[in-house]
Amino acid sequence: MKLSEIGEEALIAHIVNKHLLPRSAPGLLMGVGDDAAVMSPDEHGLLTLLTTDMLTERMDYLIDMITPYQLGWKSVAVNISDIAAMGGLPTWTFPSIGFRPDTEVSYIDELYRGMIECARRFGSVLAGGDTNSVKGDAVISICQMGKVEEARLALRSSARIGDRILVTGCLGDSLGGLTLLLKYGLDEALRINSRLVDAHYMPMPRVPEARSATETGAIHAMMDLSDGLGADLPKLCRASKVGALVHADSLPVSNDLRNVAKVLGTSATDMAASGGEDFELLMTAETDAVEGIIRTIEGETGTRVTEIGEITAGGVEILYHDGTRKPLTGGWEHFA
Amino acid sequence: MKLSEIGEEALIAHIVNKHLLPRSAPGLLMGVGDDAAVMSPDEHGLLTLLTTDMLTERMDYLIDMITPYQLGWKSVAVNISDIAAMGGLPTWTFPSIGFRPDTEVSYIDELYRGMIECARRFGSVLAGGDTNSVKGDAVISICQMGKVEEARLALRSSARIGDRILVTGCLGDSLGGLTLLLKYGLDEALRINSRLVDAHYMPMPRVPEARSATETGAIHAMMDLSDGLGADLPKLCRASKVGALVHADSLPVSNDLRNVAKVLGTSATDMAASGGEDFELLMTAETDAVEGIIRTIEGETGTRVTEIGEITAGGVEILYHDGTRKPLTGGWEHFA
Repeated sequence: MKLSEIGEEALIAHIVNKHLLPRSAPGLLMGVGDDAAVMSPDEHGLLTLLTTDMLTERMDYLIDMITPYQLGWKSVAVNISDIAAMGGLPTWTFPSIGFRPDTEVSYIDELYRGMIECARRFGSVLAGGDTNSVKGDAVISICQMGKVEEARLALRSSARIGDRILVTGCLGDSLGGLTLLLKYGLDEALRINSRLVDAHYMPMPRVPEARSATETGAIHAMMDLSDGLGADLPKLCRASKVGALVHADSLPVSNDLRNVAKVLGTSATDMAASGGEDFELLMTAETDAVEGIIRTIEGETGTRVTEIGEITAGGVEILYHDGTRKPLTGGWEHFA
Repeated sequence: MKLSEIGEEALIAHIVNKHLLPRSAPGLLMGVGDDAAVMSPDEHGLLTLLTTDMLTERMDYLIDMITPYQLGWKSVAVNISDIAAMGGLPTWTFPSIGFRPDTEVSYIDELYRGMIECARRFGSVLAGGDTNSVKGDAVISICQMGKVEEARLALRSSARIGDRILVTGCLGDSLGGLTLLLKYGLDEALRINSRLVDAHYMPMPRVPEARSATETGAIHAMMDLSDGLGADLPKLCRASKVGALVHADSLPVSNDLRNVAKVLGTSATDMAASGGEDFELLMTAETDAVEGIIRTIEGETGTRVTEIGEITAGGVEILYHDGTRKPLTGGWEHFA
């Protein structure tokens, strides 16, 4: 069987079951299965977090559609977002890059400037890494470390039936930006809506928002929306052995996305439900705690938080305005 | 300027000077510049080590010349070797892999089997990672963590003038294997000398040897020979601000390499001086300590240790039997 037939999620499950069991080892609190691995504490008693994510040319980006600065920023941001999703603070960033020998040094300089500015913005330091030459597509693989107090560690697997589902910010902006880029090219896409293009190229990991959320002590489950709600909420539900019902009308959609969806002749709600790379936080909590969580995050960070549905005992579904209920699907999957 | 013009080492120096200064940060004992980064201690007071290294298709390996099991082994081994070079013990292995969608799942299974068996052999556990799809060449990027007692941390920068230079094992076997593979293809190379082919595909990181070495308390500087003596000894010397004189006749060369060098019509000594990917340890220590170090390592691990020269105040040179002295050069450099 080929990777395209098994698909990303089944491949990971296959690897875990065939090769990585038992999943625990002394000092390893969480291996595969969440946004980051969780390891035994440092000298100050803080748990160690580590995540790794790779961007490759032609699959994750096109060289003439993104500046090296943006590419550097994004490659670090997607990793820091995983640390945020665990409730943690980023500490050390290790980029491993592979570029063709005919790449200009100035391109690498801009790439590093983007990586370093993103790391600094969220409190992380570039602490090592590796440079390699490649024959074909360029590769940027980041290893990001972080730390978190044991009491504030947030997992995917802790959602409970009856929980409310919350998200930060707006959904679908990154997909809106990508769609403009692919349809109209960089210059025209920027002219139509530069904010959506920025949302795609320079995501802002929700580190302060996640810290505010875990400060309340009321978050049950948390993850970041990297592959889109339609792909990620089912993952959270499978990890927690629950279902979910999302209210389509509640999905937070920006005016920019609404306007662009009209231009594109598509539904902004569908883009919000399936769009990947928003890097917003997906959280669940008891009904009674929702108001306090929203007040804390919005008060401390200025970032909007929206209730979009509830955790159920059934499947993972989306309920539309007209009363139709459908399985919630979509989003990004590797090898598909 | 292009990467091919500046070269790997000058590129790294450029990145460090332009982007990574100051190189220290609270909790970071050693960033770029050694085999692994060194970070603040864990709850048991052991320093945290992290290294990352990437293998890419066509640049580092050819898909029809290496089995996925060997590829998995090698990708982990080259990282564990960096942990050994710091005097440390490997703890956690995080593979981030990128493969084309038409790759067989059975290929990935064999890759994981190789990664896991290498990790286990040296006490490390696969604790996470990432799977990605790529359009072109496959990528395997490993992030390897380790730990080391502060007193046993071994750096490149601690060689002193007058030190003797020691290496473990034999040099040049990996290059011998690679040369056979490229010249004769896999089947014929295995027929001519399967041990050299194995040395190239399944290197054995010198973890126990490095632990025995640091146990003596007498090692000044240490690193692993990943790019070859001709590339790596100059790096150790630059980090320590010293020179070195290597005695060509002292270089440990296996009988296999000697025989194959005859077949190839080349010099086994030259292959030992310039060949990369041996992953042997390069160490320096005071003259008085050499005998004890050799006795300890050989006694505890069975691995031969050879004195190959001395640290000087001059350049990095090699002295031949006939009295000629030349700058020591060669070995692998990315982008060249």
